[in-house]
Amino acid sequence: MKNWSIIAEGFHKEDVTKHESIYSLGNGAMGMRANFEEDYTGNTLQGSYIGGVYYPDKTKVGWWKNGYPEYFAKVLNAPSWIGLHIKINGEVLDLNTCTEVKNFRRELNMKEGWYERQFTVTLPNGAQIAVKALRLLSLRYDELGALRYEITPLSSEVTVEIESYLDSGVKNNDANWDELFWNTLEVEAAANNAHILAATKKTDFKVLTFMQNKLFVEGKALEVSSKQNKKDSYIGLQYQVALKKNQTFKIEKYGGYKTLSSPDAPQPSYAALLSTTDAFESLLKMQKEDWAAIWELSDIQIEGDDKAQQAIRFNIFQLNQTYSGKHAHLNIGPKGFTGEKYGGSTYWDTEAYCLPFYMATKGAEVARNLLMYRYNQLDKAIENAKKLGFTGGAALYPMVTMNGEECHNEWEITFEEIHRNGAIAFAIYNYVRYTGDEAYIKDYGLEVLVAIARFWAQRASFSAEKQKYVILGVTGPNEYENNVNNNFYTNYIAQWCLRYAAEQVEVFKREAIAQEELQQWLHIAQNMYFPYSEKYGVYLQQDGFLDKDLKPASAIPAKERPLNQHWSWDRILRSPYIKQADTLQGFYFFRNHFTHEELRKHYEFYEPFTVHESSLSPCVHSVLAAALDKKEEAYALYLRTSRLDLDDYNKEVHEGLHITSMAGTWLSIVEGFGGMHVVDNQLHFKPCLPAHWRSLSFKVIFRGQLHVCKFVN
Amino acid sequence: MKNWSIIAEGFHKEDVTKHESIYSLGNGAMGMRANFEEDYTGNTLQGSYIGGVYYPDKTKVGWWKNGYPEYFAKVLNAPSWIGLHIKINGEVLDLNTCTEVKNFRRELNMKEGWYERQFTVTLPNGAQIAVKALRLLSLRYDELGALRYEITPLSSEVTVEIESYLDSGVKNNDANWDELFWNTLEVEAAANNAHILAATKKTDFKVLTFMQNKLFVEGKALEVSSKQNKKDSYIGLQYQVALKKNQTFKIEKYGGYKTLSSPDAPQPSYAALLSTTDAFESLLKMQKEDWAAIWELSDIQIEGDDKAQQAIRFNIFQLNQTYSGKHAHLNIGPKGFTGEKYGGSTYWDTEAYCLPFYMATKGAEVARNLLMYRYNQLDKAIENAKKLGFTGGAALYPMVTMNGEECHNEWEITFEEIHRNGAIAFAIYNYVRYTGDEAYIKDYGLEVLVAIARFWAQRASFSAEKQKYVILGVTGPNEYENNVNNNFYTNYIAQWCLRYAAEQVEVFKREAIAQEELQQWLHIAQNMYFPYSEKYGVYLQQDGFLDKDLKPASAIPAKERPLNQHWSWDRILRSPYIKQADTLQGFYFFRNHFTHEELRKHYEFYEPFTVHESSLSPCVHSVLAAALDKKEEAYALYLRTSRLDLDDYNKEVHEGLHITSMAGTWLSIVEGFGGMHVVDNQLHFKPCLPAHWRSLSFKVIFRGQLHVCKFVN
Repeated sequence: MKNWSIIAEGFHKEDVTKHESIYSLGNGAMGMRANFEEDYTGNTLQGSYIGGVYYPDKTKVGWWKNGYPEYFAKVLNAPSWIGLHIKINGEVLDLNTCTEVKNFRRELNMKEGWYERQFTVTLPNGAQIAVKALRLLSLRYDELGALRYEITPLSSEVTVEIESYLDSGVKNNDANWDELFWNTLEVEAAANNAHILAATKKTDFKVLTFMQNKLFVEGKALEVSSKQNKKDSYIGLQYQVALKKNQTFKIEKYGGYKTLSSPDAPQPSYAALLSTTDAFESLLKMQKEDWAAIWELSDIQIEGDDKAQQAIRFNIFQLNQTYSGKHAHLNIGPKGFTGEKYGGSTYWDTEAYCLPFYMATKGAEVARNLLMYRYNQLDKAIENAKKLGFTGGAALYPMVTMNGEECHNEWEITFEEIHRNGAIAFAIYNYVRYTGDEAYIKDYGLEVLVAIARFWAQRASFSAEKQKYVILGVTGPNEYENNVNNNFYTNYIAQWCLRYAAEQVEVFKREAIAQEELQQWLHIAQNMYFPYSEKYGVYLQQDGFLDKDLKPASAIPAKERPLNQHWSWDRILRSPYIKQADTLQGFYFFRNHFTHEELRKHYEFYEPFTVHESSLSPCVHSVLAAALDKKEEAYALYLRTSRLDLDDYNKEVHEGLHITSMAGTWLSIVEGFGGMHVVDNQLHFKPCLPAHWRSLSFKVIFRGQLHVCKFVN
Repeated sequence: MKNWSIIAEGFHKEDVTKHESIYSLGNGAMGMRANFEEDYTGNTLQGSYIGGVYYPDKTKVGWWKNGYPEYFAKVLNAPSWIGLHIKINGEVLDLNTCTEVKNFRRELNMKEGWYERQFTVTLPNGAQIAVKALRLLSLRYDELGALRYEITPLSSEVTVEIESYLDSGVKNNDANWDELFWNTLEVEAAANNAHILAATKKTDFKVLTFMQNKLFVEGKALEVSSKQNKKDSYIGLQYQVALKKNQTFKIEKYGGYKTLSSPDAPQPSYAALLSTTDAFESLLKMQKEDWAAIWELSDIQIEGDDKAQQAIRFNIFQLNQTYSGKHAHLNIGPKGFTGEKYGGSTYWDTEAYCLPFYMATKGAEVARNLLMYRYNQLDKAIENAKKLGFTGGAALYPMVTMNGEECHNEWEITFEEIHRNGAIAFAIYNYVRYTGDEAYIKDYGLEVLVAIARFWAQRASFSAEKQKYVILGVTGPNEYENNVNNNFYTNYIAQWCLRYAAEQVEVFKREAIAQEELQQWLHIAQNMYFPYSEKYGVYLQQDGFLDKDLKPASAIPAKERPLNQHWSWDRILRSPYIKQADTLQGFYFFRNHFTHEELRKHYEFYEPFTVHESSLSPCVHSVLAAALDKKEEAYALYLRTSRLDLDDYNKEVHEGLHITSMAGTWLSIVEGFGGMHVVDNQLHFKPCLPAHWRSLSFKVIFRGQLHVCKFVN
């Protein structure tokens, strides 16, 4: 079992927020950090999140720059339903104040999809108890979660007072002004269940948070009456139980969220299920079945390397917790349901990194939902481009979005990191190449491709000096450069978009698009400028790159890393250091456009300057290193990407997990060490395993067929 | 008198906020917009400001960019002391609700330094009255202002109820969250006087706002008792008077601010003065004398052009209202005391534009105060550079400051608009060249020069590609470009700073500075890179400028101007359009470094791309156009700069006046049309008058001598 679970033993207060992230649970529709059920007065980041529910925060900076977005979307901390105030002999149970904490253990069981925590404590009043708490968010029922909390007195009989509660008076940790984002509309309770109806401010998402409690002593259902503790945005149900030494008290709490304004179809009912005595066991059984079905298709087995094995499973597990593929209006936030950071939900991460994982492990239908998300938002992308001065149906997809509107507020990103448009077109190509679903382009994809091509055709401008088309003032994937000219990656993907769109217009004989327009696209593509160094034989990341002080990143003192925590922004900008694969991202997407020798030269030129301070970086370098047969380098980069959160490389896991980069981990295994690639509509493999791996096996769905792969060293 | 007054006739509600700016009053220590004394329910921007009193507003954007400032300084709207609630026969006097307003007239008398407003109205209840209100802020007494408000019933006898008040419950119009910035500590009143003690939040500037009322009917002092209306942050003194038809009631109100925490020496007392019956007449007389003394030295006379004449006087008047030169801790905010915008107080505008005006019209002492302001903040500039990674005593002066700390929060400006450092060094050179005060360098200036040279020596980096020193990632004076490489102006002033500092170290034999360091400065200066186009024979504004789509600004449709109100930021950035003189700013500072032919080529290359959307731009072009004998072009640019606010070119005068650019107006007259320049420590003139000017005359103080200049066409 060891490679199926993440286990932490021992109670260390300084690890609480970190482990709250790592042991997070999600079911694609909602999620929560691994906060304690009982009170905790130590450092914690409370977090429960509901897919698609956000708040448009004011954005006052840059207001004088025309076209700035109206708001910055905030992922909202949702009302909490897991909470239990517990008193033992009148004293609050709080791990922060207990005189002794023993046998503390957390387990995230990835095979079966649950999280368990147990511990034995001595309270300040001397009472000793053992606690075991198991929790799950149901994959079967989007709205439903359940927890089982057991208390056993170890030294004497005790009185347990327990108040099981819902609380909508929650705040965001990243609130600018400590404000509340929820209006509570209704607080209702019956004997053993209760709900709070609350609506988000401004966006008016109406969410019903509910709970139902079942109590047992020694496994026998307990009939005790509750007392209500009702406040403006809080409802608690209070119980009191006397326990003999070694008797076990258990509360089962079922809860979750009904989003009343959700665009989803009505959910399957679980009311009957909850009325059965063994509801918890039934839910646990379903959970095991549902996770077994996921793992059946997506598990990756690595023999001979436990660290690598555990890591890839953790990544696959979290990706499935974040996005189920059931909902076309949901997407994959960079932190999933594990933290508040990165406000919005959807970045280019989805198309550039996540799509291949879902295509290969869940098949075309789920992947198509990710594409449809953008198709459905095309009008807003055209509107967005219009605000920036583009015309005639040109589209610029937002950098960050919840509903298709741009909601990021730094000009160098919002206005300039336009390569995202290319990744969205590339995803269509990638999807069709991989699934064979040509009809998607005819029915939906072509509209998106044309709107994107129109954007590039207007965004490129002609340089009389160079007698070429140039793309000025952009930010590439490497966000440690802003407002540069002729970013190789951007120019290259723009050229590709223009050609691919023109080609597909021809294939599908879309006569509404004038021949002159197609010719103009091809003319621009044909005459696109790419900065190149004869001396080094490489394309330059952007104009002027060679003017920098080209010391390799290895020359930077360790105490100055990561740069973004130690160097001022201007110093980072004028340095040669690359946050994440940029030119090499182009080599990754368009591998077949370049020779092996070209790839080698570019990899060896750029890797020494790459500081990998984006979680999306090492995976791309790992894939390319494997392609170049640099096994140990590929392996080192793999570990960095796959164990980023487990080993907390960047000292920020307390803020949440790097969900989208987890897809990158999958890429480095399947496309890197497995060497999977598509050539002429056929799946090929060119494996390259690290020396100490005995074998690597995985399955992929390609064009509707399941391929079982096993590579032995 | 017409060219000594700004006069507006007729009441137009849409002009109220605009005229509140234009008719602003200031005395160098405090100032106020021309708000009405009586109630006004129409659109208004209430504003009273105290020099040096500010609030550090939160700055949340960019927080993840290392080295960001802690706060953005806000100029605070101060407690109001001019207010009078007036009722005529029980009805509130409010120009917004009167059934008729006739004979409305405003006059700003620049010769004598007062502002008068008069009107005749019919109230909704039918009462007809005439009103005349005159106001001044004393030049003699920093803390004191006075107003005289007269009411005359025209149709019948009336009852006048008047409540003269102080109000510290004021807000800023630009408050992000509508919060109050003042805590009121004490509200006190006696029979005819009152005060409020309030402190600014966070910065804790303690300010006593006071008032004293004197009432008269038909010129005879009135003994009426007041009723107090006292609230948490408000004190009103209520009076009631019955007036016969054509009898005139008059209230004289004296008020202002004592800043208890001011670094100033104790102020001369005016208590005795205020106890005299003719205090108002005395104050008016002093005001005339004090303004006469200012005009004696600073007036400029243009015969044959009333518009030009009025404009230059308005600019000189406002500069004197903003900065008196009495206080070394005060400086010249871009909007002076006329509005809230541009939060901070001090920009590079002071050194680059304002210093010459004060040197020539007030002499070396006042100019020296402006230099000492920066000298006194050197430690903070070194601290600021340290935050950005510079070492060894390198200084980077802030872009915007109240007290030496950086308080602007856009990375492309805060971190990158580093040319400001050059202007501060240049000001020292300019001051010494003009005043002959060599001792200033020895005693103070050299420390600043050395710290600035150290900054440039570290900020330039060596390009192996170019085998030259480059300066990467800057924003030049043209803020329509961000994060560019090798901005000509920045590189040029950096080179000059390095050489000038090295030279002065030698002159004053400062042995603490090692010869190796001086050699390194000179080596960098000698090998500085400047982008140059052989084809056009001009230095390029920055690397890559010729890749832009080089259409002249005249090709932009009028409805898209000003660009910053119509184009998205990225579009502006990649365009060739220049917000304000950039390369040409260098040609302006270093005229004698270039030939006439070089100046002509550069002017003719850059002027067509320059959109002059900064108020600091047309003046520099006007000076250069005059130097090139382009009389009519110089004149057109002069009008644009000098009548920017009077004619509201940029449709933004309601926000306040462009005070620092008013010094630019003076430059375009004296250095442009007058052709004043210093060569070998001698003052030279090469006048170039527009064809319709009969004559131009002004005085300048050069090296302690008064020079009287008159040029006749």
